[in-house]
Amino acid sequence: MSEAAFETLRWEGDEHGHALLLDQTLLPGEVRMVPVRTQEEMADAIRRLVVRGAPAIGVAGGYGLVLAMQPVRARDGAEFLARTRSAAAELARARPTAVNLPAAMERLVARVERVGAGRTPAELLRALWQDARALEEEERAACERMGRFGAELLKDGMGVLTHCNAGALATVGLGTALAPLYVAHGQGKRLRVFADETRPLFQGARLTAWELARGGLDVTVITDGMAGSVLQRGWVQAVFVGADRIARNGDVANKIGTYPVAVLAARHGVPFYVVAPLTTFDLACPTGAAIPIEERAAREVTHPGERAVAPTGVRVFNPAFDVTPAELVQAIVTEHGLVERPTEAGVRALFERAAATRS
Amino acid sequence: MSEAAFETLRWEGDEHGHALLLDQTLLPGEVRMVPVRTQEEMADAIRRLVVRGAPAIGVAGGYGLVLAMQPVRARDGAEFLARTRSAAAELARARPTAVNLPAAMERLVARVERVGAGRTPAELLRALWQDARALEEEERAACERMGRFGAELLKDGMGVLTHCNAGALATVGLGTALAPLYVAHGQGKRLRVFADETRPLFQGARLTAWELARGGLDVTVITDGMAGSVLQRGWVQAVFVGADRIARNGDVANKIGTYPVAVLAARHGVPFYVVAPLTTFDLACPTGAAIPIEERAAREVTHPGERAVAPTGVRVFNPAFDVTPAELVQAIVTEHGLVERPTEAGVRALFERAAATRS
Repeated sequence: MSEAAFETLRWEGDEHGHALLLDQTLLPGEVRMVPVRTQEEMADAIRRLVVRGAPAIGVAGGYGLVLAMQPVRARDGAEFLARTRSAAAELARARPTAVNLPAAMERLVARVERVGAGRTPAELLRALWQDARALEEEERAACERMGRFGAELLKDGMGVLTHCNAGALATVGLGTALAPLYVAHGQGKRLRVFADETRPLFQGARLTAWELARGGLDVTVITDGMAGSVLQRGWVQAVFVGADRIARNGDVANKIGTYPVAVLAARHGVPFYVVAPLTTFDLACPTGAAIPIEERAAREVTHPGERAVAPTGVRVFNPAFDVTPAELVQAIVTEHGLVERPTEAGVRALFERAAATRS
Repeated sequence: MSEAAFETLRWEGDEHGHALLLDQTLLPGEVRMVPVRTQEEMADAIRRLVVRGAPAIGVAGGYGLVLAMQPVRARDGAEFLARTRSAAAELARARPTAVNLPAAMERLVARVERVGAGRTPAELLRALWQDARALEEEERAACERMGRFGAELLKDGMGVLTHCNAGALATVGLGTALAPLYVAHGQGKRLRVFADETRPLFQGARLTAWELARGGLDVTVITDGMAGSVLQRGWVQAVFVGADRIARNGDVANKIGTYPVAVLAARHGVPFYVVAPLTTFDLACPTGAAIPIEERAAREVTHPGERAVAPTGVRVFNPAFDVTPAELVQAIVTEHGLVERPTEAGVRALFERAAATRS
């Protein structure tokens, strides 16, 4: 499999067009593409997790900025630039933890700034849209490359544990954590994948199980508390997860419940791999302690399947992410290769290597 | 609080009476006592988790045996004894992991055997019922004593993490893991309790949060994957859990998801306490590897709140329990005191101490 069997996100038309998102809140029951035509609709789709996954919300944010600027009637390039900056700042706030969203905003703003205030608003809108497309294409290519690097870590017959959904649904390509699985599967390696259901929002059961089964892989759903039992039984030889933000020392913020999996993997001597493109690194963040952790509504915890499972009014703590310290990570797999046993020096070397490749 | 604010189980009348169970599948939405009048109804209630928790299903099984023998028209004591043995064997199979159920069956059979085949069936039925009541009373007293021993481990202001429900609802008294919390609360110690929701059946959210709030304790519900974050933040100074079966080397089978909590607690240097009466020990089991682990239906995982969260037909692994190795246990708290850093010798010493107390 070198292309996903569905599209997470698609842009229709030119710079005056609109986005279509696969509504992930309806999966696995219903596969429906919903049109998104305004900045507000895109911010809402990101907040409600219609589109989710760090790389996908970066790309969605990029198109959101195009949608934001379409109706703007700027007198000149300078006004267009100023309005772009304020729309970007607003969109960046839709979700706080994944760095891809603010990073995409910064990148697109820098792009129109480079094109220059001397151009017409129409020219700048076109440049913005072209860069949003370029970001999409780069993320797609990055998935492919992460998949190839990661597949080298997988052997025929291995059991693999994954948490949340860092698959095709979380990106615009093959996924991050799941890309190596798709590539290895395409190489004829038989894998047995265990998908943590990932409470509170069941992304593992709803999304990972759905897309892996659709891709022809052998997948078994477990509750988050069963990961320990699967490791105890010796059924898992590698853990693959994605990331929402990686600090420059290699600490990894990812979906809540990732850190316990890393601790369990360490106890059982099973390598814990994080797969993420360079856009997920935040070099301004010294360690995981500096990463903002989104807290979401209690109802996500108390009302699975819309039925109350907790007493009315009970206190709830619902952080959407946790931080896995770098010391528990065997390697971070990126589109520019691996950072083994990540440290600040290793991350710096990765970015230097990437810069050398581009120049 | 020295008595629970509700009854998990009650016997109405004499040896010809019937049981009433608080239907725990309806909590926290509805508090309803349901009558149970036959062996089949009791076995079904145990299987469907209307009544659950190792000590409670031991007591329920005892009354189930009384119900089984009520309609039996035996010619003599010998026939009554034979029929008692076969009903006991059947009831013991309702759930496989908690040792309290087969242990209660063995105990009641031994009791009627001691009364003797020379007695009339009516006399033996009465003896059976009296011993079922005695078991209930002993379990209630054991909870009280475990609560007092365990409360000594708790200090004012502590944060406590618990998993599943090992409370008043899991016993006929104050509970096992929660008994120390109730006793400490009664002593004026302020505690902040974190209750893992405990997928797949949400006993933590549905039952622990319900009964602790009812008892006036400060409780916060988290998903199972959030226990790591709560420990990382330094909010927890002790973990208290119950047990379904303890091997003679101190390995502990308890609700699925307990082992990951023990591994996390060890990483954070937080003591992990198991609270269980002597009836939960299985001295015939050398280690946790010999404990049978019940696997339950996939639907429990795929349909929380009766809504599908996983693709139709997806493969599921649903073990109801896991085993925590003794090395991760700081102490087992019993009604005869603590076994610190449990080993086979320590468990043996506990039983010798208990025997000395009784004689």
